[in-house]
Amino acid sequence: MTDFSSRLFVAGTATEARIVLSPIFQRGRDSEGETLRARVSSILGDIRREGDVALLRYARELDGFRGELKDLRVSPGRMEESFGALPSEIRKALVFAKDRIEEFHGALREKGLSGLASHPGKGGVLVRPLHRVGVYVPGGTAAYPSTVLMTAVVAKVAGVKQIVGVSPAGPEGIPDAILAAFHVCGVQDVYQVGGVHAIAAMAYGTGTIPRVDKIVGPGNRYVAEAKRQVFGDVDIDMVAGPTEVLILADDSAQPEWLAADMIAQAEHDTQASAVLILTDMTLAKAVVLALERQISSLPRQKIAEESLLKFGFILVVPSVQVAVEISDLVAPEHLELQVRNPEKWLGLIQNAGAVFLGSEMAEAFGDYCFGPSHVLPTNGSARFSSPVSIETFTKRTSLLEGFRSRQELEDVVRNSALLARLEGLEGHARSALARLENVQKEFFP
Amino acid sequence: MTDFSSRLFVAGTATEARIVLSPIFQRGRDSEGETLRARVSSILGDIRREGDVALLRYARELDGFRGELKDLRVSPGRMEESFGALPSEIRKALVFAKDRIEEFHGALREKGLSGLASHPGKGGVLVRPLHRVGVYVPGGTAAYPSTVLMTAVVAKVAGVKQIVGVSPAGPEGIPDAILAAFHVCGVQDVYQVGGVHAIAAMAYGTGTIPRVDKIVGPGNRYVAEAKRQVFGDVDIDMVAGPTEVLILADDSAQPEWLAADMIAQAEHDTQASAVLILTDMTLAKAVVLALERQISSLPRQKIAEESLLKFGFILVVPSVQVAVEISDLVAPEHLELQVRNPEKWLGLIQNAGAVFLGSEMAEAFGDYCFGPSHVLPTNGSARFSSPVSIETFTKRTSLLEGFRSRQELEDVVRNSALLARLEGLEGHARSALARLENVQKEFFP
Repeated sequence: MTDFSSRLFVAGTATEARIVLSPIFQRGRDSEGETLRARVSSILGDIRREGDVALLRYARELDGFRGELKDLRVSPGRMEESFGALPSEIRKALVFAKDRIEEFHGALREKGLSGLASHPGKGGVLVRPLHRVGVYVPGGTAAYPSTVLMTAVVAKVAGVKQIVGVSPAGPEGIPDAILAAFHVCGVQDVYQVGGVHAIAAMAYGTGTIPRVDKIVGPGNRYVAEAKRQVFGDVDIDMVAGPTEVLILADDSAQPEWLAADMIAQAEHDTQASAVLILTDMTLAKAVVLALERQISSLPRQKIAEESLLKFGFILVVPSVQVAVEISDLVAPEHLELQVRNPEKWLGLIQNAGAVFLGSEMAEAFGDYCFGPSHVLPTNGSARFSSPVSIETFTKRTSLLEGFRSRQELEDVVRNSALLARLEGLEGHARSALARLENVQKEFFP
Repeated sequence: MTDFSSRLFVAGTATEARIVLSPIFQRGRDSEGETLRARVSSILGDIRREGDVALLRYARELDGFRGELKDLRVSPGRMEESFGALPSEIRKALVFAKDRIEEFHGALREKGLSGLASHPGKGGVLVRPLHRVGVYVPGGTAAYPSTVLMTAVVAKVAGVKQIVGVSPAGPEGIPDAILAAFHVCGVQDVYQVGGVHAIAAMAYGTGTIPRVDKIVGPGNRYVAEAKRQVFGDVDIDMVAGPTEVLILADDSAQPEWLAADMIAQAEHDTQASAVLILTDMTLAKAVVLALERQISSLPRQKIAEESLLKFGFILVVPSVQVAVEISDLVAPEHLELQVRNPEKWLGLIQNAGAVFLGSEMAEAFGDYCFGPSHVLPTNGSARFSSPVSIETFTKRTSLLEGFRSRQELEDVVRNSALLARLEGLEGHARSALARLENVQKEFFP
């Protein structure tokens, strides 16, 4: 039986806690960054230059794809079959999740977005959906149909016209569950191709795969680096790092639930981090025991253990106030508030991807079907980055329209011309002044 | 006298026009990309490792800075002096512009943003300002105080607590006009340092310059590449390319205004692009003559001429409809609609940074004081990117809170567990199921 008591720490202040937690800030820092970067850059270049020829070559070499170019696209019939092949309760669960995601984001759309978010005076802002969006779904040990729902449904609600899905084929093709999820979302254009070459194809377009306006969805280090490199030529949701949860608990929390939530996070992969910060040593010790007991029967025990022993922390601090300060330093992807009156701490929390209020609210609900997208800022980027949402799939255009009075026109002309000349841009000054008839002659002899 | 009649083209369709305009799509494509990338990467690494030591070294080497580390920070007194040293009408123009930018973005904030954009059911979204933002102001031939206003004022309206300003010193220090603009915006933390090392310092923090959450503002190719490389560790507004305007005109437009607006764009730099698309050959020829006449007395004549001869186009097309289609292919940074009833074309325009409606509305107004930020997506990125706005300086946090009924809890638990098991994540399933007392025993023996 694994002993997790080595993961128990005590800290008096947020600064002390930061030192204890320093290993989690180092996750995802790449020692072989330059090699990885060069490899990604070379694949991107090949796809840009050679298009489909390079795409097929890499799909065979790297994904283990066995077909021809025309087989890369998954037929809608195949997706429907995949859906039909699932047990009825799983089909219902996918639709249940889709409906809730749609409801949550749809309600926010009604509230926050209109076709024309106009300024009360003249001019305003036009909000428009992106035209075409690419959804990347990773392969690997765990196939995540939930990621399809958590990106494609939100894009649809935002009004995106076309969604392109990609996921590595492998020798068996894309798993049924992934295809079924695309089917549930009504996504027609799915290609069995993954990795850097799939990102490149969506960023620049090939004969087979159309160029998109934005690429969303998680992936391994190669995919993350590829997204970083194509950013600017195409938009991306974020550069995703390893996943993490931070749980704040007071003595009202239940040790079994705390342990279960830490284990759920740790089972993702060996880089995942589960941090529990609490105010009660007795509770902390109970969690250590619960972890040991619960993990012993976990199918992914080995992964969860490695993750907990490296990036798992049970940290006892003097007060919830200190715990909240630590949380804001970490800027966690997921923040669970398993405390009395969790709402009262919201005002102090500046940095978090998603906040789960109350001990009843397991992160797993948010992972699958509570409503908000589970694609969230990782690795401290909640300081400046946001969850996937309607805003992820829209863009804005400023509108500049007319003047409320002749006086306003004259003021804007005069001040524009003054500032243009301050910047040494006489052409700008003349273009502004030209709008007043009485000065036109003077400036255009 | 320069003859611009070589810039006059005819196209029957949007596809034909795209071929004519192909040079503008090639601007900013870098043939020596790898050298530039490596140089930028090496400077970033030095600042990360050595902090202030490397910062001072690069400031002396590359910016021509002559002081010590402690002199990098501009004193608030120095900024106030710079403001006081400007002629009274210029001081008033800066304040006029600031007030209008504040009014425009403030009205949108009232409309579109609240502290809590709640979902009508349970949960919602928390919108928060970023804590600390860096504003980069380029040096070079033209000092742009307007860029200070067009970023810092918007950040302030969004609620950003601290704004850090940087601009290369040169032997003379930062120009008075830039410092005065920072003063008008109430920015206290300004450092005379520019280039890649300034971007690195703001991204990672040094003893002198604090780490920020987001970096905004334009710069040269080195600065743009530096922003691209630090993206992910810190947020950035966009990877800016050369500036551009696309003007659509029908026979109601005035040739002198069209020529003046093209020249205003072209005088920025030799990579700038001014494209006029119109339906009337007589008008087109009048614009050619107006360009020749107006440019002859322009202080920046040489720059504007080179830009117009390389990236300037006067394109005659069969209809405004075709012109609008071309515009959407180009996705211009600035789009002027110098046509009758300009509003009626808005519905067809999907891709543009800012739209100027009506021939009266010169782009120069938007550059200085109409209201919306002049920091706009360039190089076709209006397909997926947006102007600097309140949204640029805020982030969102998802809130997940409680259930409307016991039934809802049970549905969410059951469906979460089903989907977790579909993904092979038993720990997730157990964490969800633990929230139902009657199954708890079964799962935690």
